[in-house]
Amino acid sequence: MKGYAMLGISKTGWIEKEKPKCGPLDAIVRPLALAPCTSDVHTVWEGAVGERHDMILGHEGVGQVVEVGPLVKDFKPGDKVIIPAITPDWSSLEAQAGFSMHSHGALGGWKFSNTKDGLFGEFFHVNDADGNMALLPKGMDVATATMLSDMMPTGLHGAELADVQFGDVVAVIGIGPVGLMAVAGSALRGASRIYAVGSRQNCIDVAKKYGATDIVNYKQGSIVEQILEATKRKGVDKVIIAGGDVDTFAEAVTILKPGGRIGNINYLGSGEFVKVPREQWGVGMGHKLIVGGLMPGGRLRMEKLARMVEVGRIDPSLMITHRFEGLDKVEPALELMHNKPADLIKPVVVI
Amino acid sequence: MKGYAMLGISKTGWIEKEKPKCGPLDAIVRPLALAPCTSDVHTVWEGAVGERHDMILGHEGVGQVVEVGPLVKDFKPGDKVIIPAITPDWSSLEAQAGFSMHSHGALGGWKFSNTKDGLFGEFFHVNDADGNMALLPKGMDVATATMLSDMMPTGLHGAELADVQFGDVVAVIGIGPVGLMAVAGSALRGASRIYAVGSRQNCIDVAKKYGATDIVNYKQGSIVEQILEATKRKGVDKVIIAGGDVDTFAEAVTILKPGGRIGNINYLGSGEFVKVPREQWGVGMGHKLIVGGLMPGGRLRMEKLARMVEVGRIDPSLMITHRFEGLDKVEPALELMHNKPADLIKPVVVI
Amino acid sequence: MKGYAMLGISKTGWIEKEKPKCGPLDAIVRPLALAPCTSDVHTVWEGAVGERHDMILGHEGVGQVVEVGPLVKDFKPGDKVIIPAITPDWSSLEAQAGFSMHSHGALGGWKFSNTKDGLFGEFFHVNDADGNMALLPKGMDVATATMLSDMMPTGLHGAELADVQFGDVVAVIGIGPVGLMAVAGSALRGASRIYAVGSRQNCIDVAKKYGATDIVNYKQGSIVEQILEATKRKGVDKVIIAGGDVDTFAEAVTILKPGGRIGNINYLGSGEFVKVPREQWGVGMGHKLIVGGLMPGGRLRMEKLARMVEVGRIDPSLMITHRFEGLDKVEPALELMHNKPADLIKPVVVI
Amino acid sequence: MKGYAMLGISKTGWIEKEKPKCGPLDAIVRPLALAPCTSDVHTVWEGAVGERHDMILGHEGVGQVVEVGPLVKDFKPGDKVIIPAITPDWSSLEAQAGFSMHSHGALGGWKFSNTKDGLFGEFFHVNDADGNMALLPKGMDVATATMLSDMMPTGLHGAELADVQFGDVVAVIGIGPVGLMAVAGSALRGASRIYAVGSRQNCIDVAKKYGATDIVNYKQGSIVEQILEATKRKGVDKVIIAGGDVDTFAEAVTILKPGGRIGNINYLGSGEFVKVPREQWGVGMGHKLIVGGLMPGGRLRMEKLARMVEVGRIDPSLMITHRFEGLDKVEPALELMHNKPADLIKPVVVI
Repeated sequence: MKGYAMLGISKTGWIEKEKPKCGPLDAIVRPLALAPCTSDVHTVWEGAVGERHDMILGHEGVGQVVEVGPLVKDFKPGDKVIIPAITPDWSSLEAQAGFSMHSHGALGGWKFSNTKDGLFGEFFHVNDADGNMALLPKGMDVATATMLSDMMPTGLHGAELADVQFGDVVAVIGIGPVGLMAVAGSALRGASRIYAVGSRQNCIDVAKKYGATDIVNYKQGSIVEQILEATKRKGVDKVIIAGGDVDTFAEAVTILKPGGRIGNINYLGSGEFVKVPREQWGVGMGHKLIVGGLMPGGRLRMEKLARMVEVGRIDPSLMITHRFEGLDKVEPALELMHNKPADLIKPVVVI
Repeated sequence: MKGYAMLGISKTGWIEKEKPKCGPLDAIVRPLALAPCTSDVHTVWEGAVGERHDMILGHEGVGQVVEVGPLVKDFKPGDKVIIPAITPDWSSLEAQAGFSMHSHGALGGWKFSNTKDGLFGEFFHVNDADGNMALLPKGMDVATATMLSDMMPTGLHGAELADVQFGDVVAVIGIGPVGLMAVAGSALRGASRIYAVGSRQNCIDVAKKYGATDIVNYKQGSIVEQILEATKRKGVDKVIIAGGDVDTFAEAVTILKPGGRIGNINYLGSGEFVKVPREQWGVGMGHKLIVGGLMPGGRLRMEKLARMVEVGRIDPSLMITHRFEGLDKVEPALELMHNKPADLIKPVVVI
Repeated sequence: MKGYAMLGISKTGWIEKEKPKCGPLDAIVRPLALAPCTSDVHTVWEGAVGERHDMILGHEGVGQVVEVGPLVKDFKPGDKVIIPAITPDWSSLEAQAGFSMHSHGALGGWKFSNTKDGLFGEFFHVNDADGNMALLPKGMDVATATMLSDMMPTGLHGAELADVQFGDVVAVIGIGPVGLMAVAGSALRGASRIYAVGSRQNCIDVAKKYGATDIVNYKQGSIVEQILEATKRKGVDKVIIAGGDVDTFAEAVTILKPGGRIGNINYLGSGEFVKVPREQWGVGMGHKLIVGGLMPGGRLRMEKLARMVEVGRIDPSLMITHRFEGLDKVEPALELMHNKPADLIKPVVVI
Repeated sequence: MKGYAMLGISKTGWIEKEKPKCGPLDAIVRPLALAPCTSDVHTVWEGAVGERHDMILGHEGVGQVVEVGPLVKDFKPGDKVIIPAITPDWSSLEAQAGFSMHSHGALGGWKFSNTKDGLFGEFFHVNDADGNMALLPKGMDVATATMLSDMMPTGLHGAELADVQFGDVVAVIGIGPVGLMAVAGSALRGASRIYAVGSRQNCIDVAKKYGATDIVNYKQGSIVEQILEATKRKGVDKVIIAGGDVDTFAEAVTILKPGGRIGNINYLGSGEFVKVPREQWGVGMGHKLIVGGLMPGGRLRMEKLARMVEVGRIDPSLMITHRFEGLDKVEPALELMHNKPADLIKPVVVI
């Protein structure tokens, strides 16, 4: 079969590979819709996960089952399914401890386009099919459904990590697709004022639709100053970091009230240290909690998020700015993510 | 001063009383808008809190400060303020333990029209003014703001008690004003499907606006059967009880999945026991958690909820079906709550 | 192979059965030490789980692996292992939701001597071996280790369900082996005063060793009155129910402070309803939380509890009052549990 | 009255001051026993809280009430009371949000020897007496009781911040008095293995009595390497930081498992940044939670901890290595804390 792969750092191309083999608990799936992710860009052009050779890219998509292992009970060939970017080993000790995304080691639930071939091929392999796939609800658009693989669960997890509560004042730093979903997630946990930090107009427009009440443009001055001034120097209850870099945490700590929480969902690709400013952190005594985490994957999460979309609680399709058709279009779609033109939020390839 | 009072069980009338005195930490306030509550009806006509003589009724309202004690720092005469139904003693051991509504004893934070005179008079007294009043945001309609005293915090607390999470399937039993706010609260914590149990058309219409996806009418058969059938016998993740009586819990337990939670915000006025069916409760082993609790009161809660209304996250004014003018109109407004005509959700009296 | 089985309600006996077959993820184990459980007594003589024919009994034990399926990675024949009473299906939706003990339905993780043959045979079958067995630590006594299957995790889960915190005043109702472990669990979560409710002298002696500060003997009057008097009518912060019946909850609710929690770990074998007294429950508004739940099983829990025993944080062997040798002795050991002589806490059979 | 004060940075001495005045909610207390704290040393010799002139030092002690304000209900002159180091403003918004120690701003509950005179004088002032003092239990040694003001609540809060659970493997970095109480707190929340990092023999001896299972001496090599080796490169579930400096967090993050928590209770007196190593922190995705916080103060906490001591759950007196008599001895006692001789853990002055 053919697949679009990372050939090595900064090199991509189409390759031929053996069709993946199906283990007793697993499934083989062919893609129906795919989306490239900024992580793919980091992986290829920044070498963020290290060197890889001929590894098929992609971890966002929906597909149709073509084969299942003999121990699979709930799926059969022909089923249309949503594939989460994170596919944990559910009986691992880490999953038993409540952190399935770190099964068998930090980030161990992230397998596609990291430790095995991803979705950008004619077929792909899903470990623990019963535990890691969800039926595509009838009538759900496959392009929309690709947002459920990573963008929506990652963004919403930001609101979980920050533990947004009714009436909280929240800052969301970064309003790319993950940040937009963090804005929506904050509104969907009852935040009052949501300060969305970003500068691109199309993202700003969508952020407002998702519930942002105030836009903070870092091109117009320090975001710390802007947010402290807007909050009468009181700061915010919660911060979600969905963009920036290791230095963003200093800003987040500074605008945060004592007793607040920072939830990070931004993959930190470079920098030796996240630096937490001692004084603004309350000399270590301020109860300003900092946590960052990979999205929870697996079937239940997919089913729950799919139901939210079904009933109209959230519409992730607002983020889709570019649509392609045909598997071969994953190449230009990924290039788009790489180049980030001003009108891009998220591209999708329907097959 | 005059006030509209409970004269004794099943008897109400206007009385003359001394204007309340202001302690060092307290405030004296005159009402700007008031709302009667079903609790007032329970208090008067069911004797739910026991016998009371010449106790001024009412615990929902906004007002204008006319006097503050010498230790009050944050308020001054002339300030317009939202008054929470629950005004805790913040340094009590219970408040220190996180349960301020039970300060100095179960339900001890509920003082107005329970253990002291309420708001339906020319003036009323607020204990710990700095801790228990919130400034009325500029431009907020006083009638809308009365919904912040009790309906909105009580309903939203239901969603907190049930710990609604992203994608949860929720049942809200009862869609009077508190249940409607529980529906809104569930949607605002990211529930997917919300089964709202009720029968009155105006409440159904508002429930849908607040996010209910399915209406379950108990007049059309057992709600247990209807909900189990709608969920393919799987039941719901969470239940909020905002109506019914002590027997409603058996239904709630039966439709609840193992690991689910029941949050009760319905004042149980009669019946000796809440009966939890042993088998459906998983023979005591099913992790079906049951908790009921009085709303959190105090200043911070009012401020946070007011911000939610300000930014448009929730619009409690949809519940207001009847508006009156003049303090003397608390009498017909309370009668309306007592008689519950078909077109009533919530009446407000603007003064 | 032979096994000691429930032949039908109120009938037990030795039977011949096929040796169990090993699935790809599973293990076949022969027992090294076994303990009968009160649940076995309920199952046989009260028909608590319904009719069963020729089902081998037992769910507490340690054993030696004799066979593993081809997908098992972490165990091999010869390994000595602790077997939890609860062996979840880890990729089920319920496990993904954090309630593995209810995998595929309420109490679905309880398989041994409930929905399949238990441990009282020459061999037994363990589903998902990697997820559900733990290596017996070197040097750990096999008799002691049988306490890890059910008594210790169930008792400690009571302290988790009640959410015991530093300095809490706790009541533990029932001081059979599970209640004793609940006492130890409360002390190990930093409770201050622990009121242990029981009457048998040997249990009282061990309860004191595990940290009970006060013994409340129900034969000397109402436990409600005794505890309210001892606490100056304030009641306790938390209650763990580890004995009694459906009527015990009314006592627990009555002695509990507002904002308290009741954690039930007592299997409720009979009675139509658990009855919660409306007034003492704060008319539904008192934040007196009630939850009961089956112990968490699986490998991680076994490993963590085994480490607690290894370092001496807790010594479950204090509960072992009777020791037998030889598989055939499971018969008299179970009879002992059935008859409950005064000197019994827990019997163990070493093979 | 006379008091032992900070005259300016690096200068201390006895001064004469007006006896403090009692507000309506407050109390005036004379000390019965006092203890100097490392924070006093930081304050004076490192200028950690900035310049101060003629500020009486000390925030650990027990005393006898000599005067109460007219609004105080639960205390009267003659009562012997435990004084918490942290005395919050209970009706502040921060206290209502659950963070009373930050009332009216970060660390705002820390008043004694920070923003007002401390305890090292003939009399001292306690704000909100009903909310911030606890009766000294009958028979409790006053020297022991001084450990309740700060050492015990701060150390135990470390175990709360790290959220130690049954069977967790915990590292406690630093075993001065606060670290020793963190060791005890970890054991009292059911930790299994506790790695205590320290080097002084008397502290090591007491750490073992409090439940440390392994001592890691940083003088014998990298603590990271020692702990990773001891845990077979798996690391620990939780870390409590009770010593070291801003660079200690990098070690803590490195030895922590994904999904783990770091609870900091060490006042960070210098350094611009706490540096969190990006890779070991799971590139921001590892769910390695970091939080540091000032101890919860106030009456309830004192009462709960006092009960723990009363029933023998914990014995903080093991830390007292030096006893003095007479108020004038606060001077040599503080010098002792400043000089830290090898045999010192904690000195107490009984008056």
